[in-house]
Amino acid sequence: MRILLIGAGGTLGTAVRTALTARGHQVVTVGRTSGDLRHDLTEPEQIAAMYAAAGELDAVVGAAGDTPFKPLPELTGPEWTAAFRGKVLSQLELVRQGTGRISPRGSFTLISGVLARSPIPTGAAASMANGAVEAFVRAAAIEIAPQRINAVSPTVFTESLGDYGDYFPGFRPVPPAEVAQAYIRSVEGGQTGQVYTLD
Amino acid sequence: MRILLIGAGGTLGTAVRTALTARGHQVVTVGRTSGDLRHDLTEPEQIAAMYAAAGELDAVVGAAGDTPFKPLPELTGPEWTAAFRGKVLSQLELVRQGTGRISPRGSFTLISGVLARSPIPTGAAASMANGAVEAFVRAAAIEIAPQRINAVSPTVFTESLGDYGDYFPGFRPVPPAEVAQAYIRSVEGGQTGQVYTLD
Ligand SMILES: NC(=O)c1ccc[n+]([C@@H]2O[C@H](COP(=O)([O-])OP(=O)(O)OC[C@H]3O[C@@H](n4cnc5c(N)ncnc54)[C@H](OP(=O)(O)O)[C@@H]3O)[C@@H](O)[C@H]2O)c1
Ligand SMILES: NC(=O)c1ccc[n+]([C@@H]2O[C@H](COP(=O)([O-])OP(=O)(O)OC[C@H]3O[C@@H](n4cnc5c(N)ncnc54)[C@H](OP(=O)(O)O)[C@@H]3O)[C@@H](O)[C@H]2O)c1
Repeated sequence: MRILLIGAGGTLGTAVRTALTARGHQVVTVGRTSGDLRHDLTEPEQIAAMYAAAGELDAVVGAAGDTPFKPLPELTGPEWTAAFRGKVLSQLELVRQGTGRISPRGSFTLISGVLARSPIPTGAAASMANGAVEAFVRAAAIEIAPQRINAVSPTVFTESLGDYGDYFPGFRPVPPAEVAQAYIRSVEGGQTGQVYTLD
Repeated sequence: MRILLIGAGGTLGTAVRTALTARGHQVVTVGRTSGDLRHDLTEPEQIAAMYAAAGELDAVVGAAGDTPFKPLPELTGPEWTAAFRGKVLSQLELVRQGTGRISPRGSFTLISGVLARSPIPTGAAASMANGAVEAFVRAAAIEIAPQRINAVSPTVFTESLGDYGDYFPGFRPVPPAEVAQAYIRSVEGGQTGQVYTLD
């Protein structure tokens, strides 16, 4: 398949790229500062430009999306909105604008995260965003069929323990290569409306 | 207790007001066009003004929050953002700004809805918003303790079947008076981080 991969240069994106390539797929990479295409997905117009440049696609997989991490009392209106734009709106529009672009039985795979179900202090904006993405995936599935959509919702990555490990005490980390297999399952499998959790 | 009720003039809010009053609570009502206080909760500054005017509070309960209903392909960036502001940001800020305002062991009860778990066509923005609220509630609970926070997540109301019934084929409706009991359970009980579902 010809697959658009958002965030291909990141920790997760690198592993997803490796896994997709190993399965024989052709991967078109997207990022703001690296990749075959350079676009900022927090801008809906940039998503339109990206699809116009991407050519024919069978699947779109997302491995990007930032949210601020701060104690709840310090999260201001603009920061809630940044979390919404960074991880939610970017992925909603990736799907909405993509349905007319990808093949009739193509698929979308979005990125969520463990904080949707298991919170940590300073993670309220991330939890909010992940919960939004997962509920959206269930909803979009019934409207875009026979195209498909799933979310991958991993715990902290082994590679990220140095940066974030202190925020995840006692959480068992997951290697990004294992998370990448959930993307393979979503892209090549037949399911839709699923949230693939890795705890 | 002295309880601030957002959306007291609505279908759900009327039932919640009746139930809280029947339990002997003093209810301060809020809405844009009716209520003891008149504020638009989609504006964070209006929430600040509301709390400044409200006086001492033991609990805050939300029964307001609009999202657009449209087929997925028609939901534009501004409409996703309207859903976020209308039902998510309004309630996040109600909590964030409220923690310093309500009593040390006070509580927040937010409104979500069945579309977080059981989608309907045209409901993608509402599903997204409800999923965001429910994940936020789990996250905020661990940061605001010993204050508490829960969400009430009902299916379609019997009173709303005339307006929305066609969108909920085969869903068993729930009387708002029954939904109001989940608010009582949240306000007077000891639990936090819960989503009380009524299907
Ligand atoms: N790290 C973890 O432990 C962990 C655990 C669970 C879930 N997650 C989730 O997994 C996702 C990826 O995490 P990661 O640690 O792999 O992140 P990362 O290493 O920072 O990589 C993110 C990638 O996405 C690109 N990107 C970021 N924002 C973008 C935008 N607006 N438009 C286009 N490209 C964008 C970045 O490249 P440019 O900067 O060049 O744009 C980068 O290549 C995130 O959504 C994160 O919340 C992470
Ligand atoms: N109806 C259903 O079947 C159903 C099922 C599940 C969940 N829900 C959820 O339950 C909640 C209430 O639904 P409902 O049917 O009772 O709604 P409703 O009858 O339209 O009542 C909403 C109330 O909230 C007030 N309000 C709305 N936006 C506001 C804002 N920005 N700031 C302050 N007040 C605001 C309205 O008064 P003003 O116009 O004067 O501001 C009104 O009193 C909604 O979040 C809805 O999604 C409803």
